[in-house]
Amino acid sequence: MAKKESKTLEELFHDTLKDIYFAEKKILATLPKMEKAAQASELKQAFAKHTTQTEGHVERLDKVFATIDKKPQGKTCDAIVGITDEGAEIMKEYKGSPALDAGLLAAAQAVEHYEISRYGTLKTWANELGLNDAVQLLDQTLGEEKETDAKLTEIAESAVNQEAEAA
Amino acid sequence: MAKKESKTLEELFHDTLKDIYFAEKKILATLPKMEKAAQASELKQAFAKHTTQTEGHVERLDKVFATIDKKPQGKTCDAIVGITDEGAEIMKEYKGSPALDAGLLAAAQAVEHYEISRYGTLKTWANELGLNDAVQLLDQTLGEEKETDAKLTEIAESAVNQEAEAA
Repeated sequence: MAKKESKTLEELFHDTLKDIYFAEKKILATLPKMEKAAQASELKQAFAKHTTQTEGHVERLDKVFATIDKKPQGKTCDAIVGITDEGAEIMKEYKGSPALDAGLLAAAQAVEHYEISRYGTLKTWANELGLNDAVQLLDQTLGEEKETDAKLTEIAESAVNQEAEAA
Repeated sequence: MAKKESKTLEELFHDTLKDIYFAEKKILATLPKMEKAAQASELKQAFAKHTTQTEGHVERLDKVFATIDKKPQGKTCDAIVGITDEGAEIMKEYKGSPALDAGLLAAAQAVEHYEISRYGTLKTWANELGLNDAVQLLDQTLGEEKETDAKLTEIAESAVNQEAEAA
């Protein structure tokens, strides 16, 4: 019974790893488009930095797959497809608008929060499964996703201040 | 120029309100299914409580629409459709499995994080647009979403402890 329970949580862990692996690759393909679309140089830089970080996240996931003796593999993640579709819609609908950057920031923060929830969950499960190396790897990425989200909030709020100063 | 900028951010605010309005209604339809599927009574109770809260969130959104003289209206939100589809898949694939609750917790936390990102963004924009009543309403819901996420983390981690004790 205990063995079956572990096995099933391990399957859920494996399934969710595939989900976030697909998501990271999708994000890696999307970030350069967002960097190109962004108007403020601070936002462009944030997207460029996060692209480099995301490459590192994929590499860490490769190592996490190795901790459960599985080959890195993605599985279509409907959530990230939906989230990035919304971002693509913003880029199209708000092209040339002064609110474009605000929309890009919102889209990027929705992505970050999805990742924060997934890495938090995976870390909890890795802990439960006694996968100590995986816990560390997932925690490193979780920390970077939280930092990125905080940086994006800072940029979004500094835009508010600029607006207030201009008024 | 300043006027055009405000107007465009107001449009983005209005579009995103429609997005989260659709999302809250979708969540309201999904939570009772998750409550029914959940095995642990603590998780069932958390979902039941959050259903009641979500009804309050929809009512608050009605009031936020009123602050910009708009009728409450939803617009298909691809992100929440994707996130809830993943939850539905978990309920189907892990039915009868001991890992079902873990999967439901993960799905619910993905939903919470989407909402946290959306309400955070809307609050920042309401602030920028000088919509003080909207800022307060959005902040109340944001606080409740964060509390719910923390409660779900607590349940997920207490499951870890039980597992550890049983080992």
